[in-house]
Amino acid sequence: MALTVIGSIALDSVETPFGKREEVLGGSASYGSVSASFFSPVNLISVVGTDFPEKYFKMFSKRGIGTSALERKKGKTFRWKARYHYDLSYAETISTHLNVFTGFRPAIPRNMNSKGNLLLANIDPELQDWIFERIKPSGLVACDTMNLWIENKKKALLKLLKKVDLFLLNDAEARQLSGQRNLLEAARYISDKGARMIVIKKGEHGALFYSRGLRFIVPAYLLETIADPTGAGDTFAGGMIGYLSKRSRITDKSLRRSLVYGSILASFAVEKFSIEGLLKITPEDIKNRYEHFEKLTKF
Amino acid sequence: MALTVIGSIALDSVETPFGKREEVLGGSASYGSVSASFFSPVNLISVVGTDFPEKYFKMFSKRGIGTSALERKKGKTFRWKARYHYDLSYAETISTHLNVFTGFRPAIPRNMNSKGNLLLANIDPELQDWIFERIKPSGLVACDTMNLWIENKKKALLKLLKKVDLFLLNDAEARQLSGQRNLLEAARYISDKGARMIVIKKGEHGALFYSRGLRFIVPAYLLETIADPTGAGDTFAGGMIGYLSKRSRITDKSLRRSLVYGSILASFAVEKFSIEGLLKITPEDIKNRYEHFEKLTKF
Repeated sequence: MALTVIGSIALDSVETPFGKREEVLGGSASYGSVSASFFSPVNLISVVGTDFPEKYFKMFSKRGIGTSALERKKGKTFRWKARYHYDLSYAETISTHLNVFTGFRPAIPRNMNSKGNLLLANIDPELQDWIFERIKPSGLVACDTMNLWIENKKKALLKLLKKVDLFLLNDAEARQLSGQRNLLEAARYISDKGARMIVIKKGEHGALFYSRGLRFIVPAYLLETIADPTGAGDTFAGGMIGYLSKRSRITDKSLRRSLVYGSILASFAVEKFSIEGLLKITPEDIKNRYEHFEKLTKF
Repeated sequence: MALTVIGSIALDSVETPFGKREEVLGGSASYGSVSASFFSPVNLISVVGTDFPEKYFKMFSKRGIGTSALERKKGKTFRWKARYHYDLSYAETISTHLNVFTGFRPAIPRNMNSKGNLLLANIDPELQDWIFERIKPSGLVACDTMNLWIENKKKALLKLLKKVDLFLLNDAEARQLSGQRNLLEAARYISDKGARMIVIKKGEHGALFYSRGLRFIVPAYLLETIADPTGAGDTFAGGMIGYLSKRSRITDKSLRRSLVYGSILASFAVEKFSIEGLLKITPEDIKNRYEHFEKLTKF
């Protein structure tokens, strides 16, 4: 099944206790599409400025990520600058400059196949909804979000989560959205609000899947080093829906495995800065880590 | 294999956002022995005061927990008073009165079978070591600890962990002892210090097993309600070594399963106050939760 990924593309400057990078590829759609590209061809919809390095266009294209709907707009690419301290679960944002992303409304290609799957990577839920309504996707739709939108666009988010199939957020966000400390209660709250399938990402502690028919918990892969947690959640979402796009049917088994693949892709991403960790691996590395993960968790 | 559990017995007064209890059974050896008793006969070594309720002696005896080496000393039983707030991972101690536990050195029974397994439940590592040296156990020895001893008796703890087979501590304690934020690095540090097998308990996030030959991660069982987290770690340790005491051989498979049973026993314990959650269940309940846990985690 074809997969379309829509979200942000940014140039990030990130510092962690383990190093720093200036103006490297970031944004939810970058991580999401690169992660998904291990499993499925991807059609990428986003916007960049005229300063966006040509090398990233080439990298996308080399990975089977179509960029015909990746708009190049006059102006500067979205910039994000942040610092992580000892506790890598929290990013201190130093500056955010939306630049060409301000007010972005993508030109949805006329010939766009609405039968494919769709990942609405983390961006403003009003924009996610606007896109959803224009594509009217009939495939599987996954939607990721963040604390900012729960704080400022809760109504739009609650409207959107009824429409999508798979709603992803992290543990702190699930607690924030539901007002429930217990994650099972938080998942039930979100389910009662109309989300069909919910994935609560718990960072270094794994993830939780919740639907009426299936509950599944997966620990995170054990890592020796974490260089930069940026994009872990986006990579998880991309890996998950990328894997599901490869399957002919969505079953309990494929859903369980999609979380494991999401977790594994995220583990590669955080070992390096930006998407470096994803670019250096092969399908063989993913297979090996999947098998190691099985050994680590089977009882 | 016979199992001896040595640790503290206390009367706890605990308040959480979900209720409170006054003067109920607590202490590491209480949780540890009741948890282990689902799998193995237990010999309990500890000390209580003359005010210790007769009903608890009866409860121990009914559960196959031998109390012939449970000393009844003139004076008051160890008292602990604490309060938990919204974040249940942290207990605010209001008061600790060791009472008869002060300077406790158990009279190790002469006829004590040193061939059995031993759980050194969380108490002062100098006392744990003193006991270890007197029993000279030849079976499996597990040792649990807490932040207080890492802070105040680090040297004694580092000496002890070389002697025991299985060293248990929680994630914050593993970080404290090793000075490593990453749990895999923390485990390796503790392994380098001479611990053969290490279990890092992560509370609501499960647990991690680390030895030279085996690494295993287990998520925590998903709970709807947590009434009181007191004793979760002690219950985990008791369930783990209780299960291993039932097996004829210690294999990778039995070690993996022992963590799952430890996790499941702890899940029952925290659903209620004190040991109420453990007293209301049957082996059938444990079996059902084990099967549910398999469903929750298999992929």
